[in-house]
Amino acid sequence: MNVVLIGAGNLATRLSLALHAAEVRIVQVYSRTIAHAGKLAAQLGCSYTDKLEAINPGADLYIYSLKDEALPQVLRRVAPNGGLWVHTAGSVSMDVFKGYIPRYGVLYPLQTFSKERRVDFSEVPFFIEAATEEDTLLLQKIAGLLSGKVQKLSSEKRKIVHLAAVFACNFTNHMYVLADNILKENGLSFDLMLPLIGETAAKVKDMAPSDAQTGPAIRYDKNVMQRQLDMLGSDEQKEIYKIVSKNIHKEALRHE
Amino acid sequence: MNVVLIGAGNLATRLSLALHAAEVRIVQVYSRTIAHAGKLAAQLGCSYTDKLEAINPGADLYIYSLKDEALPQVLRRVAPNGGLWVHTAGSVSMDVFKGYIPRYGVLYPLQTFSKERRVDFSEVPFFIEAATEEDTLLLQKIAGLLSGKVQKLSSEKRKIVHLAAVFACNFTNHMYVLADNILKENGLSFDLMLPLIGETAAKVKDMAPSDAQTGPAIRYDKNVMQRQLDMLGSDEQKEIYKIVSKNIHKEALRHE
Repeated sequence: MNVVLIGAGNLATRLSLALHAAEVRIVQVYSRTIAHAGKLAAQLGCSYTDKLEAINPGADLYIYSLKDEALPQVLRRVAPNGGLWVHTAGSVSMDVFKGYIPRYGVLYPLQTFSKERRVDFSEVPFFIEAATEEDTLLLQKIAGLLSGKVQKLSSEKRKIVHLAAVFACNFTNHMYVLADNILKENGLSFDLMLPLIGETAAKVKDMAPSDAQTGPAIRYDKNVMQRQLDMLGSDEQKEIYKIVSKNIHKEALRHE
Repeated sequence: MNVVLIGAGNLATRLSLALHAAEVRIVQVYSRTIAHAGKLAAQLGCSYTDKLEAINPGADLYIYSLKDEALPQVLRRVAPNGGLWVHTAGSVSMDVFKGYIPRYGVLYPLQTFSKERRVDFSEVPFFIEAATEEDTLLLQKIAGLLSGKVQKLSSEKRKIVHLAAVFACNFTNHMYVLADNILKENGLSFDLMLPLIGETAAKVKDMAPSDAQTGPAIRYDKNVMQRQLDMLGSDEQKEIYKIVSKNIHKEALRHE
C-alpha cells in the first residue's frame, strides 16, 4: 500500500504521521508551498513536490487534504489514474470526484488537529464512504489501523456531523479565546480556567448537555447580566454574551 | 468548627459534601424548600430548616450559597451573631455583608457543580477574601482542607474570573447543547462528539486558545459558511453561527 498525500496542513500532517507510525508507506507529499511539503516529507522519509503534474501516478491511495474551496479545482489538475482517491473533509460531498476518476471515497477523522500536537487516533471516530463496496472495505481496513471507531456514513450525514463539530469544537474554542481575552485584559491567567474547562468537558460524558448547564443565564437574571455586560470591553463580546445567554434561558425553559 | 449552610443548590450540595468528607462538621442546612434542605441534611447527618429565624446562632461559620439576587435580602433576615459569614458567589462583592455583621468574607470555588455529580475538589481553585486578616487565614485553612489551589482575590478581580468562567464553562456547555440538538434532529448520537470535545479542552492546557483555533470560520469561507447556515433549523442557531464565526475570523486576523 503506497500513499500519496496532497496537502500538508494540520489534518494532513497528523493523519500522515499516524499512518506512517502504523507502517503505512507514504511515498510523496504535495503542497503548493514547497517548504511545507518538504518539512512533512522529512518526517515521513519520502519525496515531495509543489507541482501537481509531478504527482506519482502509481500509488494505491491518494489522500486529498485541502481547504474545501480548493479541492474541486486542484483534483482536476492531477492526471486520472487507477488508485483510490479520497478526501478528508467533513462538509464536502464524495461526489466531488464523480465523473473524473473511477475509484473514490472519503476518509474523515473527526478531531481538531494542530501541526505540532500529537493526537491519540485510537479514539478518533473515522467516517468513511466509497463509490464501491470493495473500496469501502479498503478504507475500513486503513482507518482500522489507526482507530477502533470506524463507521460508514453518507455525505449528507457527514455534513451534519461536521456542522455539530463546528459548535462542539470550533465555537467552544472561541469561548475559551474570549475567556482568555477577558482575563488577559485584567492581568489574570487563563490557567485558572483549566480545571473548570476540564470538568465542563467531562460532565457531558455522563449527562446530557442540557442537564449539565449551569450559570446565571439559566434564570436570565437581568441584574447579573447587565452588570456582566457592563464589564465587557467590546461590542462583539457584548453581542455574543447577549445572544448566547438568551438562548441558554430559552433552552432551560424548554427542558423544565 | 461548626458550620451552618444556607442554601441547598448545586454548589451548596457539592461543597458541603466535600467539607463533610473532610470531617468538617456541618450542623444545619437551611433551604426555603424544606425537601431540598432535608435531602441534603440526610447526607450530612445534620438538622435542617426552612425558617431563617430557626438558624442556629452558635456556629463558627455560615456559608451562604444562594442565588445572587436573593442573597442581600435573605442575609438580613438572619439574626447577626459572632460567627464568620461567607458567600460563595463569583459576581457578588464581599461588601454585601458590610455594616450588618462584624465578621464576613467570600469562599468562591471556581467549578461547575451539579447536585448528582461528584467533583474532585483537590484541583478546584478557591478564591477567598475576608474583612480581617485573621478570618482570611481561617478561610485559607478551611479551603485548604479541600484544595491545593487556594488564593486571596479581591471582589473586583473575582468578578472578572466569574465573567471569564461564564464564557469558558456556561457558554461552552451551550455550544455542546447546540451540537446535541443538531445531531438529535438528524438521528445522530452526541457520543460521536466526545473525543473531539475532550481534545478541544485538553489542547488549551498546552497552547493558547487562539493558537488552538481550527475550523472553517478562521478563513471566513463564505461558501462553506452559507451552506452550513442553510442547514441550521432555527433563527437562534443561525444568529449564533454568524456572530461567532465573524468573531473567530476577526481574532484570526488579529493573531496573524
